[in-house]
Amino acid sequence: MSTRLSQLFVRTLREDPSDAEVTSHRLLVRAGYIRRQAPGVFAWLPLGLRVKARIEAVIRDEMTAAGAQEVHFPALLPREPYEATGRWTEYGDGMFRLKDRKGADYLLAPTHEEAFTLLVKDLYSSYKDLPLTLFQIQDKYRDEARPRAGLLRGREFTMKDAYSFDASDAGLDTSYQAQRDAYERIFTRLGLEYVIVKADAGAMGGSRSEEFLHPTAVGEDTFVRSAGGYAANVEAFTTIAPEAIPIEGQPPAVELAPADTPTIDTLVGQLNDAHARGDGRAWTAGDTLKNVVVALSHLDGTRELVVVGLPGDRDVDMKRLEVAFAPAEVDAAGDADFAQNPVLVKGYIGPQALGLESESGIRYVVDPRVVDGSAWVTGANRRGVHVTGLVAGRDFVADAVIEAAQVREGDPAPDGSGPIETARGMEIGHVFQLGRKYAEALGLKVLDENGKQVTVTMGSYGIGVTRILAVIAESNNDEKGLVWPENVSPFDVHVVATGKDPVVYEVAEKLTADLEAHRLDVLYDDRPKVSPGVKFGDAELLGVPRIVVVGRSAGEGVVELWDRRTGERTPLPVAEAVAALTAPRAS
Amino acid sequence: MSTRLSQLFVRTLREDPSDAEVTSHRLLVRAGYIRRQAPGVFAWLPLGLRVKARIEAVIRDEMTAAGAQEVHFPALLPREPYEATGRWTEYGDGMFRLKDRKGADYLLAPTHEEAFTLLVKDLYSSYKDLPLTLFQIQDKYRDEARPRAGLLRGREFTMKDAYSFDASDAGLDTSYQAQRDAYERIFTRLGLEYVIVKADAGAMGGSRSEEFLHPTAVGEDTFVRSAGGYAANVEAFTTIAPEAIPIEGQPPAVELAPADTPTIDTLVGQLNDAHARGDGRAWTAGDTLKNVVVALSHLDGTRELVVVGLPGDRDVDMKRLEVAFAPAEVDAAGDADFAQNPVLVKGYIGPQALGLESESGIRYVVDPRVVDGSAWVTGANRRGVHVTGLVAGRDFVADAVIEAAQVREGDPAPDGSGPIETARGMEIGHVFQLGRKYAEALGLKVLDENGKQVTVTMGSYGIGVTRILAVIAESNNDEKGLVWPENVSPFDVHVVATGKDPVVYEVAEKLTADLEAHRLDVLYDDRPKVSPGVKFGDAELLGVPRIVVVGRSAGEGVVELWDRRTGERTPLPVAEAVAALTAPRAS
Repeated sequence: MSTRLSQLFVRTLREDPSDAEVTSHRLLVRAGYIRRQAPGVFAWLPLGLRVKARIEAVIRDEMTAAGAQEVHFPALLPREPYEATGRWTEYGDGMFRLKDRKGADYLLAPTHEEAFTLLVKDLYSSYKDLPLTLFQIQDKYRDEARPRAGLLRGREFTMKDAYSFDASDAGLDTSYQAQRDAYERIFTRLGLEYVIVKADAGAMGGSRSEEFLHPTAVGEDTFVRSAGGYAANVEAFTTIAPEAIPIEGQPPAVELAPADTPTIDTLVGQLNDAHARGDGRAWTAGDTLKNVVVALSHLDGTRELVVVGLPGDRDVDMKRLEVAFAPAEVDAAGDADFAQNPVLVKGYIGPQALGLESESGIRYVVDPRVVDGSAWVTGANRRGVHVTGLVAGRDFVADAVIEAAQVREGDPAPDGSGPIETARGMEIGHVFQLGRKYAEALGLKVLDENGKQVTVTMGSYGIGVTRILAVIAESNNDEKGLVWPENVSPFDVHVVATGKDPVVYEVAEKLTADLEAHRLDVLYDDRPKVSPGVKFGDAELLGVPRIVVVGRSAGEGVVELWDRRTGERTPLPVAEAVAALTAPRAS
Repeated sequence: MSTRLSQLFVRTLREDPSDAEVTSHRLLVRAGYIRRQAPGVFAWLPLGLRVKARIEAVIRDEMTAAGAQEVHFPALLPREPYEATGRWTEYGDGMFRLKDRKGADYLLAPTHEEAFTLLVKDLYSSYKDLPLTLFQIQDKYRDEARPRAGLLRGREFTMKDAYSFDASDAGLDTSYQAQRDAYERIFTRLGLEYVIVKADAGAMGGSRSEEFLHPTAVGEDTFVRSAGGYAANVEAFTTIAPEAIPIEGQPPAVELAPADTPTIDTLVGQLNDAHARGDGRAWTAGDTLKNVVVALSHLDGTRELVVVGLPGDRDVDMKRLEVAFAPAEVDAAGDADFAQNPVLVKGYIGPQALGLESESGIRYVVDPRVVDGSAWVTGANRRGVHVTGLVAGRDFVADAVIEAAQVREGDPAPDGSGPIETARGMEIGHVFQLGRKYAEALGLKVLDENGKQVTVTMGSYGIGVTRILAVIAESNNDEKGLVWPENVSPFDVHVVATGKDPVVYEVAEKLTADLEAHRLDVLYDDRPKVSPGVKFGDAELLGVPRIVVVGRSAGEGVVELWDRRTGERTPLPVAEAVAALTAPRAS
């Protein structure tokens, strides 16, 4: 098939769109691939739709090869199933909700776990029907607080979501692995570099969870990796806890003289001014136990104060904290909270008076580094007074251990593969072991070999189709425009005819027809009144990787092969150009 | 490609779904093509999705051949453009509306005229850019009052909508014709019988408008046609008005003696009992002028009473009346209306006291048969009193002529092609000349040859993809199940292996592989423990038109070709069966 540029519905723009924050958004709009309709909502022009269709074809192909079957669910779904799993509430403002003319509640589905679970429950009833993996390529809706970055975070976006159904945990492992393998093939075919990181399952529930991240500076996710092969989302990073220390024989805790030391710095100053550390070294922030008060808003509407204890040389990482307390929402405690709880003396909080078993009844949770027997400098719960040698497991007891402290470059990877470094990435896929959460909530059971009802275990597997299109654009461009990988380019070849000589257009038409006969999709710039400079500029902006320029030497049967990525231009006789363009290629 | 039935996500049902009103819905659910998610909202299972994809491929192919370019708009659109064209209000309860987290108004688009108009305005500015026709295949939303009949009237449904843009009326005619021709090719390829009827443009505005109706007893539309080739939607049927009659020389109107004659029947009885008609014939209901009071609710919130005058032998057709008064809503007048307007004497209303110019100020509109000089028996606006010889244009004046009377079989077609008959059909496509309504409301202009700004003229062309899938199912089935036309069948061939003899399955596998090698899509029923009867029943229910049964004679290399439509079964050696199934076919 060939398309004449004079007929194509496209208009390239010289100016960047004013609302474009990232390169992919800027270039996709300027090159006429997409147009914004509302914040985070885009229309697809013919060029954009072609690229999207090619990406979808690769995904569909690999899903089918992995044994997944395609279905298609509506975006408009009734409230009830999402109520049953709790997500009607949990999704908060992120979900679009609406009512029909009769006042019934509906939502625009952000993902489809509930619908798939109910469909399988509807049709299947025996372990013999399983394993089963279903997928769809479908438009989803999320009311993002800050729809930004063009297609990278849209409010209406296309997703491939797949769900697996198994009667046993071992079956789930196999289904999960099949999807994980398919993802690796998909991203490889699309020319997308990726890192697989351990991820927190978050609101999706479940156990094993990995994200496919594309390393890029515009990535929204920070992840960590070690030279030894460890990789994880910061939210999923786990701390190596030190060994517990014997408590017996440790000196009792000692209160310091009252002083105005409400910060870690002032406290460390007081210590180094007035107290030997014992081993001759100076006191550091790491010797102190910092106690951070946060307020949790639980789903049932209740509010709870919790104190988080962690070494004073680390801050709390809010994202990690949110994951630790999900699905509750986390806020900093306010002045009123301190006023109502005189036990919490700002700047001088100590764990002695905290814990569910204490008189205050305030939950106290600690970083994994706060092991039994570790001794700390911390508050004495009286204004101006700190205490040293407060020993965990003797002088205070934590209710739980949580991962909420900042992760730092150089921290040891939990698998012993060495120190970690941090990097930024964009999530391009995720694979989750949901387990039985949805099946239990919605009653999806099958009969097993012994005729006993067992709850099905599920996996959920997503790829943001429109997002990866943007990610590919983000990583494949130069200052002149887009440079598509061959497998997703809207056309295989871009033929540019320049000048006014009729022979140029005869040669170009013939060349286009020849390439078409070889089943190549050709974009033919046939515009008679447009200057060569503008045509070249458009070709560079549009980003078809293989360009043929038909110009001055057309009369002698010579054209120019132009590699958009390298910029290399090679004059060749027409027949050789055709041969080069139609030669089988590795892909 | 081949698919094993043992692996396919499908479950055929013996029972009809309880909510299925029509055959297509019943069979598509029973055969495992679709599942209901909410009223008018369906999920597509693998079989259904295959049929849908094949229909979409035919439509896409013909749209492209007709020069239309594919784009894709979001379903979620902001309120403002629909406000500018008035449709935010006009659509009433039929449109799904919602708010985002910031409180901004959005809608789920029922059609996309506004969005396409704005996109073209955004990118194009010269007559040289036109003509342009764009299309999309996309999911739309309408909050139907009575979502019924499965896919025939859904609330989320897939539509192909196309829009043409031209600088001149002649250009619009050409673009319109190209789409109209494409529609004829599409329905022919899909094996769908159709009638093209003149249609009312309704809420879409514009001038020329035709509907493609599929004649079927379950059709929601009544249309009329003549043996001479006329065809129209009942709403678009126009009445041949008789010639005007000279008023001069007609006798004055005469009041009848008071009597209790509040109905046409009692009035005609009084006339025939006591008054000669003049020409010796009996009086009939057709001699009387019936005056029907209706209440209009205008978009600006005002309410208006209007009286409709029509020959007493015809009732008002509410649908035609609604079209005549659109976009106002029409209701019957209530008791309070009569009480507040004493001039309206129930059963004895006459036009003498009506009309915008009369003292009552009540608008009076008439049927085209009420021509100047026609004389009528009608009310005298006093209880018990009627009047004869009341002459239009002399004794009363109508404010307007409207088409609101029932259309009857035998009425003359307006083009002189003979008497009409009525039939029922289901709308499967529509083509509209929108004209400049949307371009004017949204400011879509281009520069013409003389550098002058001209408003673009548009067309709108729709096909309900999911609806025509249901229409095809509705017209292609028997008591045993579906019978797909070859061009839309989910598979080309259904291979059924029966019995327990391993040789059967060997032959069936080989046959399936052979057919696959010929690029046929094969469904292979490989289920070892299912009885032949159940397999045959499933094959009949699923409706693949060409079935091959591999059974007892497999050992001798003989299989049975089974034509699902005719029921004919033909034993053939395997090689001949393959040859028959892979022979080139007209399509």
